[in-house]
Amino acid sequence: MPTFPFSAIVGQDEMRQALLIAAVDPAVGGVLVFGDRGTGKSTAIRALAALLPPMAAVIGCPYNCDPASPADLCPHCAAGGPRKSQKKPVPVVDLPLGATEDRVVGTLDLERALSAGVKAFEPGLLARANRGFLYIDEVNLLEDHLVDLLLDVAASGVNTVEREGLSLRHPARFVLVGSGNPEEGELRPQLLDRFGLACEVATPTDIATRIAVVRARDAYERNPDGFCAAHAKDDAAIRKRIEAARKRLPSVTVPDAALEQAARLCLALGTDGLRGELTLMRTARALAALDGATTVTDDHLRRIAPAALRHRLRRNPLDESGSTVRVERALAEVFA
Amino acid sequence: MPTFPFSAIVGQDEMRQALLIAAVDPAVGGVLVFGDRGTGKSTAIRALAALLPPMAAVIGCPYNCDPASPADLCPHCAAGGPRKSQKKPVPVVDLPLGATEDRVVGTLDLERALSAGVKAFEPGLLARANRGFLYIDEVNLLEDHLVDLLLDVAASGVNTVEREGLSLRHPARFVLVGSGNPEEGELRPQLLDRFGLACEVATPTDIATRIAVVRARDAYERNPDGFCAAHAKDDAAIRKRIEAARKRLPSVTVPDAALEQAARLCLALGTDGLRGELTLMRTARALAALDGATTVTDDHLRRIAPAALRHRLRRNPLDESGSTVRVERALAEVFA
Amino acid sequence: MPTFPFSAIVGQDEMRQALLIAAVDPAVGGVLVFGDRGTGKSTAIRALAALLPPMAAVIGCPYNCDPASPADLCPHCAAGGPRKSQKKPVPVVDLPLGATEDRVVGTLDLERALSAGVKAFEPGLLARANRGFLYIDEVNLLEDHLVDLLLDVAASGVNTVEREGLSLRHPARFVLVGSGNPEEGELRPQLLDRFGLACEVATPTDIATRIAVVRARDAYERNPDGFCAAHAKDDAAIRKRIEAARKRLPSVTVPDAALEQAARLCLALGTDGLRGELTLMRTARALAALDGATTVTDDHLRRIAPAALRHRLRRNPLDESGSTVRVERALAEVFA
Amino acid sequence: MPTFPFSAIVGQDEMRQALLIAAVDPAVGGVLVFGDRGTGKSTAIRALAALLPPMAAVIGCPYNCDPASPADLCPHCAAGGPRKSQKKPVPVVDLPLGATEDRVVGTLDLERALSAGVKAFEPGLLARANRGFLYIDEVNLLEDHLVDLLLDVAASGVNTVEREGLSLRHPARFVLVGSGNPEEGELRPQLLDRFGLACEVATPTDIATRIAVVRARDAYERNPDGFCAAHAKDDAAIRKRIEAARKRLPSVTVPDAALEQAARLCLALGTDGLRGELTLMRTARALAALDGATTVTDDHLRRIAPAALRHRLRRNPLDESGSTVRVERALAEVFA
Amino acid sequence: MPTFPFSAIVGQDEMRQALLIAAVDPAVGGVLVFGDRGTGKSTAIRALAALLPPMAAVIGCPYNCDPASPADLCPHCAAGGPRKSQKKPVPVVDLPLGATEDRVVGTLDLERALSAGVKAFEPGLLARANRGFLYIDEVNLLEDHLVDLLLDVAASGVNTVEREGLSLRHPARFVLVGSGNPEEGELRPQLLDRFGLACEVATPTDIATRIAVVRARDAYERNPDGFCAAHAKDDAAIRKRIEAARKRLPSVTVPDAALEQAARLCLALGTDGLRGELTLMRTARALAALDGATTVTDDHLRRIAPAALRHRLRRNPLDESGSTVRVERALAEVFA
Amino acid sequence: MPTFPFSAIVGQDEMRQALLIAAVDPAVGGVLVFGDRGTGKSTAIRALAALLPPMAAVIGCPYNCDPASPADLCPHCAAGGPRKSQKKPVPVVDLPLGATEDRVVGTLDLERALSAGVKAFEPGLLARANRGFLYIDEVNLLEDHLVDLLLDVAASGVNTVEREGLSLRHPARFVLVGSGNPEEGELRPQLLDRFGLACEVATPTDIATRIAVVRARDAYERNPDGFCAAHAKDDAAIRKRIEAARKRLPSVTVPDAALEQAARLCLALGTDGLRGELTLMRTARALAALDGATTVTDDHLRRIAPAALRHRLRRNPLDESGSTVRVERALAEVFA
Repeated sequence: MPTFPFSAIVGQDEMRQALLIAAVDPAVGGVLVFGDRGTGKSTAIRALAALLPPMAAVIGCPYNCDPASPADLCPHCAAGGPRKSQKKPVPVVDLPLGATEDRVVGTLDLERALSAGVKAFEPGLLARANRGFLYIDEVNLLEDHLVDLLLDVAASGVNTVEREGLSLRHPARFVLVGSGNPEEGELRPQLLDRFGLACEVATPTDIATRIAVVRARDAYERNPDGFCAAHAKDDAAIRKRIEAARKRLPSVTVPDAALEQAARLCLALGTDGLRGELTLMRTARALAALDGATTVTDDHLRRIAPAALRHRLRRNPLDESGSTVRVERALAEVFA
Repeated sequence: MPTFPFSAIVGQDEMRQALLIAAVDPAVGGVLVFGDRGTGKSTAIRALAALLPPMAAVIGCPYNCDPASPADLCPHCAAGGPRKSQKKPVPVVDLPLGATEDRVVGTLDLERALSAGVKAFEPGLLARANRGFLYIDEVNLLEDHLVDLLLDVAASGVNTVEREGLSLRHPARFVLVGSGNPEEGELRPQLLDRFGLACEVATPTDIATRIAVVRARDAYERNPDGFCAAHAKDDAAIRKRIEAARKRLPSVTVPDAALEQAARLCLALGTDGLRGELTLMRTARALAALDGATTVTDDHLRRIAPAALRHRLRRNPLDESGSTVRVERALAEVFA
Repeated sequence: MPTFPFSAIVGQDEMRQALLIAAVDPAVGGVLVFGDRGTGKSTAIRALAALLPPMAAVIGCPYNCDPASPADLCPHCAAGGPRKSQKKPVPVVDLPLGATEDRVVGTLDLERALSAGVKAFEPGLLARANRGFLYIDEVNLLEDHLVDLLLDVAASGVNTVEREGLSLRHPARFVLVGSGNPEEGELRPQLLDRFGLACEVATPTDIATRIAVVRARDAYERNPDGFCAAHAKDDAAIRKRIEAARKRLPSVTVPDAALEQAARLCLALGTDGLRGELTLMRTARALAALDGATTVTDDHLRRIAPAALRHRLRRNPLDESGSTVRVERALAEVFA
Repeated sequence: MPTFPFSAIVGQDEMRQALLIAAVDPAVGGVLVFGDRGTGKSTAIRALAALLPPMAAVIGCPYNCDPASPADLCPHCAAGGPRKSQKKPVPVVDLPLGATEDRVVGTLDLERALSAGVKAFEPGLLARANRGFLYIDEVNLLEDHLVDLLLDVAASGVNTVEREGLSLRHPARFVLVGSGNPEEGELRPQLLDRFGLACEVATPTDIATRIAVVRARDAYERNPDGFCAAHAKDDAAIRKRIEAARKRLPSVTVPDAALEQAARLCLALGTDGLRGELTLMRTARALAALDGATTVTDDHLRRIAPAALRHRLRRNPLDESGSTVRVERALAEVFA
Repeated sequence: MPTFPFSAIVGQDEMRQALLIAAVDPAVGGVLVFGDRGTGKSTAIRALAALLPPMAAVIGCPYNCDPASPADLCPHCAAGGPRKSQKKPVPVVDLPLGATEDRVVGTLDLERALSAGVKAFEPGLLARANRGFLYIDEVNLLEDHLVDLLLDVAASGVNTVEREGLSLRHPARFVLVGSGNPEEGELRPQLLDRFGLACEVATPTDIATRIAVVRARDAYERNPDGFCAAHAKDDAAIRKRIEAARKRLPSVTVPDAALEQAARLCLALGTDGLRGELTLMRTARALAALDGATTVTDDHLRRIAPAALRHRLRRNPLDESGSTVRVERALAEVFA
Repeated sequence: MPTFPFSAIVGQDEMRQALLIAAVDPAVGGVLVFGDRGTGKSTAIRALAALLPPMAAVIGCPYNCDPASPADLCPHCAAGGPRKSQKKPVPVVDLPLGATEDRVVGTLDLERALSAGVKAFEPGLLARANRGFLYIDEVNLLEDHLVDLLLDVAASGVNTVEREGLSLRHPARFVLVGSGNPEEGELRPQLLDRFGLACEVATPTDIATRIAVVRARDAYERNPDGFCAAHAKDDAAIRKRIEAARKRLPSVTVPDAALEQAARLCLALGTDGLRGELTLMRTARALAALDGATTVTDDHLRRIAPAALRHRLRRNPLDESGSTVRVERALAEVFA
């Protein structure tokens, strides 16, 4: 069954913007999506990955090494000289709630250990996610140390394995997408802060939109191929926009005035450390690139600030407003 | 001992309706049955499965692959070219409370690993349930992560195994039926929402019905063959009705007006996400097919709404009514 | 040391009646015995088993298959054609509190796995209990899932093994007898309901009976053979009564009036489901058979109702009476 | 270092009486000793064992089978025909708090399993305690299931092993002696009731006794051999008294009047079941045998009643008296 | 990607001073850094290590033994006579939160155990950290026994392995740096006291500094090589200062007056034991060495006292001031 | 680095007295040291051990058997006839908090089990501590069962191994020294009571002493060899005093009057059992021996009573005084 087309997603603008930004610059850090179940989070990620241009990957390499990026090769590919590559779809890896650390990180290849007496590494989910997306549903129910480990790897792009006498490093560059329902358990502030962007999704409340979503879903399920064909053109347009933004990104500039506004915003909100400003700078740059702009403007900061900051606020006992309201209030103040 | 005949079940109309709908369209999602013990839930599922037409299955395939459905073949059958098939009864697999994840999902075949040094897969209960029913008694006492896993597989029709260095996918299309007593532990709302239909069963309170049930049970136990012979004709009629509905299903239409009513109903009840509407649409369509209709009408929506929605309501502290009452009140309002 | 004779047991009429009924019709379900320690529960069960006629069992079969009952043969005996049998005493198996599930259910035969590389089954306590009694002291301290498993097997007469890559079924027809002290932990209502009969035993309070019990015990311990010889005739009479009742059982009828009274009784007591009525019907029938009667009468229902129903009552906050009092009150009302 | 002599123990009359009774008739059940640490409980048991006549044991038998008692032979000795025996001291086995069940019960002999591929049994502490004493310090801190298991074995004299595919029975007749401090955790009433006798020990409060104890201990530690030689004659006298009592025991009679008094006593105290009376009868008989009497009298009952009954009383919220006081009050009433 | 240059760090003076002191005299004990996330703690340690002169290490030695320091050789190097060495960067080892003790301490080399039957040691993270830095993020979330173990090793410079039948000692001289957020769990006072220095870091609050930090970070990320080249000269100056201080350290004197002031300070603050004074003496000496001085003065004590003492204060219920305020108050008093 | 000299320890008189007594008569039982960290507890024990005369030990014996003490030989040395010995320093073994029971007690030698198929014993820390000191820092944080085990071994001088099919005994005579901070968790009274002596250490509060301690420590760390040489003579004097006391010990007498005073003291304090008096007698004897006296006097009792009794007092709700105060009050009363 072909994947649901990204362009056929109805509503959920903030989540789609965040995913596009992550597709342009994976270095912005993970994306956290909070909200009701049944609002198509998993569908959106798969749709985005399916829309991205297929990637060239070394044949047989469990990390899908990019032959054109020699700095990011796995030890095998780095050692083995030129290798043949093939086109593969961008991977989306699901991390199930019950996954054990060894399955995520990789582990000793018992089969080879027992049969050939060799201590070989058996790559895990992080290997498979390299150059793609790692999706965790209900990330707030995952054990803290696993979330921590995933954020470490996502930040460094490298999986460092220290287990069972194995000691190796392999590339693991991926966009970490976690979804969760804030009503069931919360993430520690320390972990929240390490996600780049946080968006909220909600069930649409107007009947026309609801019918549109249900109809689209039904149309897709009853005739997947026809439905996808109908949206192929729109998907191609989005793909081109991402590819253009990726090329433009290195040359987008961030003026001092923008950095000052970002700092004012973070000071007004009292975020810890400087992750808020760093994220604002990076994501505004990616947004500008998607817009075809060459300079970050206040408009970019304003559009991305809620997603970049709302998960970094300290609880304020005197201010019962939701975090989105607080970010918007600070935006109004700083950009007044 | 032959299975108790479906047509000999006394009462429990809602449960029987839900099972018939699931038999017509397994994609409606799992069925949850709440209520007293000793009300024949397990009997009903076995009865329905026994009544269904036997299925053609590849001989020796642990997944009972359907030779006529090439898209759903297991890796073996997909790879191995044409295979001989035989008729087999539709499986009903019981998932015992103490079942471990490895036995459910499947695991490494230790015997072959030790004897032949090969890392082979030993299929689990999900493999055996393919194309049939998976029954969990006291599903509310099962660990959340197992319920989650089962719902994932039931929704996708695929069992993805990531364990002990094994990595494979096999078909696992089944109707998940869970029973439970709401007085002992509850399912998380997140899990409840993923079941398609939820019915309530209760002990009959009129003496005639009770005697009828006890007599039927006793008659069956003392002379199983005679009892079944006496109900063979009624069972055959139900089988034909299911077969006809399955054929009719793809052509049943859902008018916009029906979708609008479904949306109104969900809005009135404040269900999260759009699973409520999607389920209403699908189950009303299956119900219409069972009725021999070609279009979904308000009547179908009304008849299926309690089972499709009662487990998706948010607790309302100002409204102490039971969920069935709340659904019926909303039905009265929307279809006024 | 020979077993204490059943006919030498002093008092404890209700427990003895329940055990006799279970000996006549094992399908009535397990027997639960509540009460003080040191009241001879374990002794009574051993005594009953020792008194039953020895059974013919296939030589070497770990399940003691009955060569005369081809429907209940284990896979080995079923496959192996005619086998020689011998007479064996009816087994009584103790399930110790610390028993692990694998020892109960059976497990992989490690010795053969390691030496011969074969995945053979090593039968457990359920195998050994086939055609006899399984006794659990302090059943209320056993883990719920084990009680559940035991009740499942007792109800179906089949042990289904799904462990360590083993998958087999073998006959396990036995009378489950659990004893417990209600002051230490309680069984879940769900489990209580699955036992057929529940009796209460108490320390005798008149001095003559106490001396009689102590004397009997002392006489037995100091000269076991002499004591047993003295009771051999009484034991033989009980054995004949059981054998006669077993033959008569299939022809005992239950008139509609009796079923109606049973239903009234259960309605008056508000038992969940219909297990109460089914048990009343079955046990009254066995009691009638023991009496030499051919029809169940109100008298049989009255005599067996406390043991058949007292463990199925819902806690009633407005009625602090014990469950036995409540059953008797309902009996008085219904049979008024 | 030779063992401290039994006859050199200062004070602690009740404990010494209980140990002597257990030495005469091990069937009276375990002995529980409650009281302060440092009051010589462990010393007394070792002293008693060292004083008992050495026993003839089959050479090489891990159970120390008695060649003169064919009914109690282990499977090996039973199978192997006549074997040579030697004299061995009566064993005293300490069960340390951290002991695991496998070390207590015995376990698979891994060495032989790995080297010779044979599933042999490696006997545990219960094997070693056969025909001797098993001592548990701080029995109230031991896990309930282990205490239960030990009481079962002590009561039956047989260790039934159902572990790791092993299934065997071997003799394990021993006197179980448990000590504990009631201030740290209590035994469940169910377990208390299964001990035959319960005594209290306390630190002496008069200075002369204290100096005597300390002097004796010091004299023993500084010159063990000389100290033991000085008490050899007194120890021999006690040994003869025990041997005579063992021979006399079978012929000691218990008149009905004594049993009636025992029953009255238990009724007055409201003990559960009839273990109280059975223990009174047996221990009074052993006491009579030690006294050289041929009939149990009221005097024997009175002397042994506190130790036989004090641990079987129900907590009485209206009577705050200690259990010893309550037993004595009942004695005064019944023997008035 | 080259390491961020130490001289490019903006602000965080106290942390930088503490790291420099530890670089001069690793014997001052671990450094604890408390404060907000995202304030560059990990960056600073890596920057310092990268700036230090490369060290000569025996080729192939897993402990990086220093051929010029025969007293600190590992057993292998000590036994093996002269070995060839090479220059290597000073190691920085990260201890991840989930690290198991065996991976930290080292463990049995399973591969060699299985293949060659030899019980060889597989060095752990402590081996790799020898002569460098061991960094623990969120040290307050690490299990106490691991922190304890790390502090023991850091204090003695030796890792003593007692595991799995292995028994060996190897050099493990490193500077332990732990970071933590005091809002999430606290370290036990016992552990706090064993760290040499404790500093606080905070998010800068003036906009210019914030922009400077963000700009520096961005400049580094977009052009690492250019950025590092621009700071190479400043880094070299710091390296020279450290090298000079190391040479000067043994000759720096601590006059009695300084020790008396240190004792007064600790008495005024009521620190337990004498670790406070010992640390003040050692760190003031290292600070003097960094300053190019030959004698410790009051000024050195004053500058280092907050970091040396603030984590050794007892909680004072009558004094709610923060620990830094309390140290400064005592400084004012003692140096008045 | 040579050990810090015992004679260079400043202050901490009570701890030093207790260690000297234990060195003269290890049978006085373990020593418990309570107080602040950083007060040199670990240093003092190492210092004492280093000062003791080296001991003759059988070469290659893992228990350091004393060839001159045939009663205390390990099974190997006992079996093997005369063996060559060598002089070795008295061992001090540290028991780390995370130590597992198998490492303490000893365990199966896996290497030999796997390679040679022999079930050999691999000695643990108790073996290594034989004839020396076993030091446990923070003994109050160790698991109770380990403390219990250690006290058992320390009391008996024998390590009895019952693990993994191993069953052996080896000598393990050592002085157990435990240190702890009473503010963090307490030992159970049962365990406290089994330590022979308990001392308190505190941070000195006068500045001169503090400077003396810090200077001594610094002098030692900067020039270990010179510092030790300077104290060699004082250490030798202490060594001679210990050697003289050991020889004199067997002939020191304890008059009845002293025992009576000891008993009065314990009665006045209400200690449980007679361990208080036994310890007073033994430690006063060792103290007399150190003093060169031949008879125990009131003075010896007075000097040792606080350390011998303060950990054996029951909590008295009406007397809030510390235990040292209570012992001194009783001393004043009894010796008035």
